[in-house]
Amino acid sequence: MSKGPNAARRNESSRQAILAATEDLCRENGYGRLTIEAIAARAGVGKTTIYRWWPSKGAVVLELLDQAATLASAPPDTGDLAADLRTLLTEVIGILTPVHTSPATGLIAEALQDPDLAHDLREHLIEPRIAAFKQRLRRAQDAGQLSADADLDVALDLLYGPLYHRMALHLGMPDPGHLDSLVAHVLRALTPPHPAGVRERRRKSQTGVS
Amino acid sequence: MSKGPNAARRNESSRQAILAATEDLCRENGYGRLTIEAIAARAGVGKTTIYRWWPSKGAVVLELLDQAATLASAPPDTGDLAADLRTLLTEVIGILTPVHTSPATGLIAEALQDPDLAHDLREHLIEPRIAAFKQRLRRAQDAGQLSADADLDVALDLLYGPLYHRMALHLGMPDPGHLDSLVAHVLRALTPPHPAGVRERRRKSQTGVS
Repeated sequence: MSKGPNAARRNESSRQAILAATEDLCRENGYGRLTIEAIAARAGVGKTTIYRWWPSKGAVVLELLDQAATLASAPPDTGDLAADLRTLLTEVIGILTPVHTSPATGLIAEALQDPDLAHDLREHLIEPRIAAFKQRLRRAQDAGQLSADADLDVALDLLYGPLYHRMALHLGMPDPGHLDSLVAHVLRALTPPHPAGVRERRRKSQTGVS
Repeated sequence: MSKGPNAARRNESSRQAILAATEDLCRENGYGRLTIEAIAARAGVGKTTIYRWWPSKGAVVLELLDQAATLASAPPDTGDLAADLRTLLTEVIGILTPVHTSPATGLIAEALQDPDLAHDLREHLIEPRIAAFKQRLRRAQDAGQLSADADLDVALDLLYGPLYHRMALHLGMPDPGHLDSLVAHVLRALTPPHPAGVRERRRKSQTGVS
């Protein structure tokens, strides 16, 4: 099926209208009440237009999130690792908040009951971002900001974990001060006490420098 | 309404039959397909018996989980803090696994869409267990196994977070080796680098971090 540039432009503007309508309706009424009919009406397109591109509302929300989670796709690298991690986590907090009307938490809830959607969520949205996160940490290792033998799977677990624990159990997202503290704790956890450090402390205590 | 001992016994056996039927049906078909009708049929009781005690299937599952998460209610204290934390987290892993048919993940998914159920989940199931967890950590602080100024909210975030992150995004639960590593990292994170190097080294040898 060949389309000229005008058709492509029209399609892109319909696509954006559909994603915007999906986000708005979800934030107004929650993911549970979201329907393809309502999205079509709000976006001013026919239901068939939506079904031509997406098989379900979950697929629409997946694409919406793919478009929203931009920092996680290309993590910042300002040279300040802790600041960049706080920036990344702050994006996730925004995406997961408020818990009951966030498109992301709605999709997570549905995927907990739907293995196919869970597969798509992990493969299309999450895994590429985990790869980008680890690449960012490897650059930090190369730059000597993170120890070369730090376990990047542990880093992923400890940095992102708290946000999803708090989401799942309705404990409230960390405020900026607590987020600072979390990142600082995790960076400390990833920095093993080096034999050099022990030698350094021993030398200091011998020379009376504290 | 006064009831004799026989009535109380019959009630308790109905209650246990209802909870067992709820767990079995959930693990067979998933939380989404669970209905009060199906629970009543499997438990051999009338629907009205269930509705007399619980307003919804979410409430039944909440009571089921309250009965299942026993270690979290009274955390072990063997004197080995890392081992006790691994025991606690292993109970949670069992409760959240397999993700698509666990009653707990089904309830979490529903609560993400239902603020009232979220409130009950947090108030009745989670908050008392968080209090018990912190009490266990305070005993560890008193026993000198955990630094007196360790931030217990950070400890909660970092220890439980990874399990819920992995649940929400379908990343698979940590195996025992990775769980060991997570606990060791978190205990290291909670141990601030003190000028007193001797105290620092003694704590590290206790937590098994090298």
